[in-house]
Amino acid sequence: MQALVYHGPGEKEWESKSDPTIEQPTDAIVEIDTTTICGTDLHILKGDVPTVTDGRTLGHEAVGTVVETGSGVEDIQQGDKVLVSCISACGRCKYCRRGLQSQCLSGGGWILGHLVDGTQAEYVRTPFADTSLYKVPEGLSDEQVLFLADILPTGFEIGVLNGGVKPGDTVVVVGVGPVGLAAIITAKLYGPGRIVAVDLDNSRLERAREFGADVTINNSSENAVERVQEMTDGLGADVVMEAVGVPATFELCTELVCPGGRVANIGVHGEPATLHLETLWIKSITITTGLVDTYSTLTLLKLVSEGRLDPTGLTTHRFELNEIMEAYDVFADAANTNAIKVTLSS
Amino acid sequence: MQALVYHGPGEKEWESKSDPTIEQPTDAIVEIDTTTICGTDLHILKGDVPTVTDGRTLGHEAVGTVVETGSGVEDIQQGDKVLVSCISACGRCKYCRRGLQSQCLSGGGWILGHLVDGTQAEYVRTPFADTSLYKVPEGLSDEQVLFLADILPTGFEIGVLNGGVKPGDTVVVVGVGPVGLAAIITAKLYGPGRIVAVDLDNSRLERAREFGADVTINNSSENAVERVQEMTDGLGADVVMEAVGVPATFELCTELVCPGGRVANIGVHGEPATLHLETLWIKSITITTGLVDTYSTLTLLKLVSEGRLDPTGLTTHRFELNEIMEAYDVFADAANTNAIKVTLSS
Amino acid sequence: MQALVYHGPGEKEWESKSDPTIEQPTDAIVEIDTTTICGTDLHILKGDVPTVTDGRTLGHEAVGTVVETGSGVEDIQQGDKVLVSCISACGRCKYCRRGLQSQCLSGGGWILGHLVDGTQAEYVRTPFADTSLYKVPEGLSDEQVLFLADILPTGFEIGVLNGGVKPGDTVVVVGVGPVGLAAIITAKLYGPGRIVAVDLDNSRLERAREFGADVTINNSSENAVERVQEMTDGLGADVVMEAVGVPATFELCTELVCPGGRVANIGVHGEPATLHLETLWIKSITITTGLVDTYSTLTLLKLVSEGRLDPTGLTTHRFELNEIMEAYDVFADAANTNAIKVTLSS
Amino acid sequence: MQALVYHGPGEKEWESKSDPTIEQPTDAIVEIDTTTICGTDLHILKGDVPTVTDGRTLGHEAVGTVVETGSGVEDIQQGDKVLVSCISACGRCKYCRRGLQSQCLSGGGWILGHLVDGTQAEYVRTPFADTSLYKVPEGLSDEQVLFLADILPTGFEIGVLNGGVKPGDTVVVVGVGPVGLAAIITAKLYGPGRIVAVDLDNSRLERAREFGADVTINNSSENAVERVQEMTDGLGADVVMEAVGVPATFELCTELVCPGGRVANIGVHGEPATLHLETLWIKSITITTGLVDTYSTLTLLKLVSEGRLDPTGLTTHRFELNEIMEAYDVFADAANTNAIKVTLSS
Repeated sequence: MQALVYHGPGEKEWESKSDPTIEQPTDAIVEIDTTTICGTDLHILKGDVPTVTDGRTLGHEAVGTVVETGSGVEDIQQGDKVLVSCISACGRCKYCRRGLQSQCLSGGGWILGHLVDGTQAEYVRTPFADTSLYKVPEGLSDEQVLFLADILPTGFEIGVLNGGVKPGDTVVVVGVGPVGLAAIITAKLYGPGRIVAVDLDNSRLERAREFGADVTINNSSENAVERVQEMTDGLGADVVMEAVGVPATFELCTELVCPGGRVANIGVHGEPATLHLETLWIKSITITTGLVDTYSTLTLLKLVSEGRLDPTGLTTHRFELNEIMEAYDVFADAANTNAIKVTLSS
Repeated sequence: MQALVYHGPGEKEWESKSDPTIEQPTDAIVEIDTTTICGTDLHILKGDVPTVTDGRTLGHEAVGTVVETGSGVEDIQQGDKVLVSCISACGRCKYCRRGLQSQCLSGGGWILGHLVDGTQAEYVRTPFADTSLYKVPEGLSDEQVLFLADILPTGFEIGVLNGGVKPGDTVVVVGVGPVGLAAIITAKLYGPGRIVAVDLDNSRLERAREFGADVTINNSSENAVERVQEMTDGLGADVVMEAVGVPATFELCTELVCPGGRVANIGVHGEPATLHLETLWIKSITITTGLVDTYSTLTLLKLVSEGRLDPTGLTTHRFELNEIMEAYDVFADAANTNAIKVTLSS
Repeated sequence: MQALVYHGPGEKEWESKSDPTIEQPTDAIVEIDTTTICGTDLHILKGDVPTVTDGRTLGHEAVGTVVETGSGVEDIQQGDKVLVSCISACGRCKYCRRGLQSQCLSGGGWILGHLVDGTQAEYVRTPFADTSLYKVPEGLSDEQVLFLADILPTGFEIGVLNGGVKPGDTVVVVGVGPVGLAAIITAKLYGPGRIVAVDLDNSRLERAREFGADVTINNSSENAVERVQEMTDGLGADVVMEAVGVPATFELCTELVCPGGRVANIGVHGEPATLHLETLWIKSITITTGLVDTYSTLTLLKLVSEGRLDPTGLTTHRFELNEIMEAYDVFADAANTNAIKVTLSS
Repeated sequence: MQALVYHGPGEKEWESKSDPTIEQPTDAIVEIDTTTICGTDLHILKGDVPTVTDGRTLGHEAVGTVVETGSGVEDIQQGDKVLVSCISACGRCKYCRRGLQSQCLSGGGWILGHLVDGTQAEYVRTPFADTSLYKVPEGLSDEQVLFLADILPTGFEIGVLNGGVKPGDTVVVVGVGPVGLAAIITAKLYGPGRIVAVDLDNSRLERAREFGADVTINNSSENAVERVQEMTDGLGADVVMEAVGVPATFELCTELVCPGGRVANIGVHGEPATLHLETLWIKSITITTGLVDTYSTLTLLKLVSEGRLDPTGLTTHRFELNEIMEAYDVFADAANTNAIKVTLSS
C-alpha cells in the first residue's frame, strides 16, 4: 500500500509500504476512506515529539471500512463503516473503566501515528478494535463524522466538559485554530451566555464568529483582560479555555478567569508556565489538563445523527489521498491558505 | 475593653480600646470566651499582609456569647453561645448563594482581624451575624468547636472536598502544620486507603501519624516522589494537598499526583510557582485553589455533636486571654515548643 | 388598596383591603406593576389547598417596585424594580444554604398567596426581601422577567436539572400546559437530541412544537410508549418529565424511561400513584420530586439579559390589574380561549 | 463435573454434568475454589424467577482459578486466581461504557446461574472474561474477596452511592439481611453521623449493631418513623435504603426520609408499591433503583487489600463444595440457624 511516512524532522514521504496485518486477536484492519491532517502532525514533523521514530506512518484520524478482524473482535465486523478514533482504548484497565482512556494502562492511549502506524495510508491496523472503532450511523457522510476522531471530542471533553460550561456562562476561548473552533462549536451545547474568542489573527477571529463566537478580541491590539472584565462587572469569565499551547496564553487564561471559575487547558505545551499562586491561591479557581479520552464520542455521533451538530464546515480544502504531500503544504501554510482542516479521500 | 492590636510589622500590644458597637442592622456584638492564634496572624506580623493596617485588632477565630444584636438579626439572639467563623458571609450575593462565601461581593469574606477588628479581644463586632455565626450545639465545650472557625473547614473544603477524596484513595498531605493536620483528620471521613504525610520535621511527622497518617516521609532525607510511586504501582497519588505555601512544595505536589488525579492547594502563597505544563498537559490532572468558604461548617458541627470528629487534640497549650502576648511567643516558636494550636480563654 | 381575595372554594372577589405594612425588619413592601395567574390559583379556588383560608389575597408571581423596606433589609432599596419570586427564602437555615429554599425552615418556602397575602393586589408585603426579591436588570420589560417568578425556574430546576438533561438526550415532557412549556424552553439550554411532547390536546401539542418540541404524541390516539421506543432502539427516553399531576401520567412516565434514565416529577399531585417496582427495581432509574427552589433565578435572569431566553411568548392575553376577575375566567377556560399565561398590569 | 442443578420450583440436585467449554473467544473456564449461596437462589427455587429453566446450574458468586481462556482474552490468564463477579459485562456497549454494566446490551448483565450455567459447580464458563473477572490481589484469602462478587458492591453501589451518603448523615437501612449488612459496612466509608437499622427480628438487629449500626429499631414493636424523627429534629433521615423487597418496607422508607433526602431501593420486588405523591411531590426527594453494576469492584478490592474493609465476618457457616445440599438447608433456615452467608470450598 501507499502511506505517508515520517523520516525524521522535516522529512516525510508518500511511499510504498507493506500492508498491515492482524497482530493481536483484538486488532482490526481498516481501509481508509477519508483522513485528515492534525496540527500535531506538524509538531511531529518539526521534531517536537521524539517518541515518533523514522519509518512511522503518520495520522490518527480517519473514517474507513473494516476489511479484517482478529479472532477476539466481536462487535466490529468486516464491511463495517467505522470512525477510527485517535485514542485506542483497551476498555478493561482501571483508567479505561473510569473514562480516562487517554491514560490506558494496556498500551492504548494516543498510539496511532505515534507509537504504531497511523491513518494517513491506504490501510491501518487498529488495536482494541471493539473499544476504539465506532460504527458510523446510517446515512452520515464521512465528512460529517471525520472530526469526531479527534478535535470535536478534544474541544468538548477537555475544553467544555472539563471547563464545566453552564447556561449563561461567559466562556473565553484563547486561540481559535481548529481545536479552539471545536471548543466553540461544542460549548454551544450548554447554553452559554456569551462566547468570547481571543486570537492574534483577525481572519481567524472572523471565522470564530461564524462558528459561534459572540465577541472577538484581537489581543495584539486590545487588552483582553480589560475587555472581559468590562463585560462581566469586573469579575472575569466563568470558563477560560487555552487552545494555543504557549506559556503566555496560559498565563493570560489565569488572568481572565473570575473568582470561582475554571481554566481548561487544551493546548499542547512544550515549556513550563508561571502559575501566579500569589494571587490565585485565594481565588477559588480550578485548572484542568488532559488529552482527549473519547468517552463522549458516542454522544457526539448521536448529536450529528440527530442533526444537532454539524462539523462539516471545518473542512476548507479537499484532496485525493494520494495528493497528501500537497495537502500538507496547504495545511502548514494556514496563515496564507486560510486552511482549517484539509480532508483527504481515497 | 482589652484587645491584641497590630501596630505595623513586628509590633503588637495587648491594650485598652473602646468596646465595639453595632454599626449595621445585621451586626452582632459577641463577648469572647475562647479564641486562638492562626499562622496567618504571624504572617500579618511579618508584614506579609499589607491590607492590615495599624490599629487593627487581630484574630479571626472564636467561641463567644452574643451580648447585642442589630435590628435586622433574626436567628441569633442575645445570650446565644456561638462559633465566630473566620468568614463573614452576606448570604445574599451570587457567590454566597453558590457556597463561595470567601468571594462574598457585599464586603464579606475574610475580614475579621484583617479589614475590621477581630476576635483576639474581649468583644468583637461580627457583621452579617445571621449567616456568619453558628449556634454551638448543646453540650459541646468551646474547645470542641473552636477550630471549626477556620482550620477544620479549611482542611475539609479546600483540601479534602476540592481534592475529591474517595474511599480507597492514596492521599498525600505535603506540610503537616495545623492545617495539614486538619486535612488529615477530615480526610478520614471519606475512607481513604492510605494517608501519606510529607514534611521536613520528624516531630511534626510523628504527630501526623497520631492524627491519622498511615505513612510518613521526611523529604529532607527521602525522595517523596519515589516513595509514593513505589506504593502506587508507579502511578502516583490520587489526591495531593499542598499545605505549606511555597513554590517548591507546590511543584512537588504536581510530581506526586497520578494521571487523572487532583492537586488541592491549601497553602497561602506569596510567590509564583512553576507549572510544568510540558509534562502535565497530557496527564489529565486538576488543580484547585481556595480560601475556606465555610459551607461545611454545619456538617462539621454535626459530626462533632455526633461524636464522629474530635479536634480537641489540636490544642497543645492553654492560656488566659490576657496572657496572649506570651501565647504568641509560644505559638511563634513551634519548632521548640511543639505547639500546634494555643487556646486562650477569658 | 384593591386585592383579589379568596373567600372559600369557588369564591373570590376583587375588593378593597388595608395596605400591607412592614411586620418584620427583613420585609419589604412592593407595589405591583405586573402579575399573573397560576394553575395553582385555580386549584386553590377548587378547594384543593385547604391551608389557604378565607380572606387570603392570592398570587405568588409579580414584577413590581419597592416602596418601603424594613430596617434589616440591606440590598433591596426603595424604588428598585424587582421580581417577586414565588419562594420566600430566609437564606440562613440549613435548607436555604443547600439551595433547597422550598424547604426553608424559618417560615419561608411557598407562602405568598398561600399562608400570607399574595401578589394579585396593588401592594404586597414580601418577607425575607433581600433573599426573595431580585432586581430586574436594566432594560428588561416586566413581561420578559415575570415568568421567572415561578414557571421558568420550576420547569428548569424540577424538570430539566432534576432530570439531568444532557446533550443528545431524548427528553419526553408529559403534559404541555404552562409548566410543561417552561420545561421545554429551558431543556433546550442543554442541547438535547430530541424533545418529545405528550398531551391529549392537539392545540397544546401544536403550541409545544412552536416552543421547541421536535416530536408530538397525542396519547388519546397514539401509544406513547411504542412511539418513544421506536425512536430509541427500544430502550426508552433518557429523561421523562411529568407535568400533569395525576397517577396515570406519572405511571406513563415510568414506562417511557430507559434503563438508567430519570423521571422528574413536576406535577402537583392529590393522590397516590402506583410504582411498578416489580419491573423498575432492576432498571436503574431515578425518580425526583420537588417544588421550585429558585436557586436558578439569577442564572435565568442572566440568560434573559443576554438574549438567550425569551419567555414573552407565553403571554397569550393581557389585562389591566383591575380586570382580574375577567382574566381568571379567560385563564380557567384555556380549552376554549387557548390561554397559556394571562398578564395583568397596573 | 458435579454441579448444583435447578429442576423447577423446589427441585435441585448436586449431580454430574459435562464440563463447560469455551464457546466464545472472550470466554474463560474457571475452576471454583470457593462459592456461596445468595438469597436470590432461594427466590429461584421458589419459582419466582421464571427465566431460570430446568437444567440450569445455579450460583453467581465465586473465587476460582482460571484453567482455560478463549483466543480473545488478553488480561486474564490460565492460573490466575480470580473473583467471578455476578455481573458479566461486555465492556463495549453504551451502558458498560457509562458504568451501567447491569444493563449491558451485548447479552451481559446478571446471567450467571440465571441465563447461563453458574458458579455452584466444579467449573464455570465465564463470558466476557477480561471485563467480568477480577484478579485477586496477592495475599488475600478467598473469603476476604468472595462477597465482592455480589453483596458488597450491591450494598455499596445501589445503597450507599445511589443514596449519596455523606459525612454526618443519618442513614437508615430497612432490612438487615446479608445485603442490608453490606450496605451498613460500606456506608461507614463515607463517615455518616448515625446508622439506624430497622428490622422485625431482634437477633438480626443485634448483628447489625456488630457490623456498625449505631441505633436499632424493631418495627414490629416500635414506630420507626417517630423514632427517626425524634433523632432528627422532626425532619427524617438523609438517606434511607430499602433492603427487603416488599411494598410495606418501601413505603416505610418514603415516610422515613427527610425533605431533600434520598431513598435507595436495593430490594428485589415482586409487586408494585404505592407511591404517596400527594405528600412526596413537594418534598424534593430522590428515589433510585438498580441492580449492581460492579463499577466499584476494583475500589472494594483495593479497600480489602489496604485493610480498610473486612467482609470475612459475614460468613457464619463453612462447608465443602460437595456438601452444598446441606448448606442450602442451613442458609434457607436462617431464622433458626442464624446464617448470614454460607461459604463452600472445594
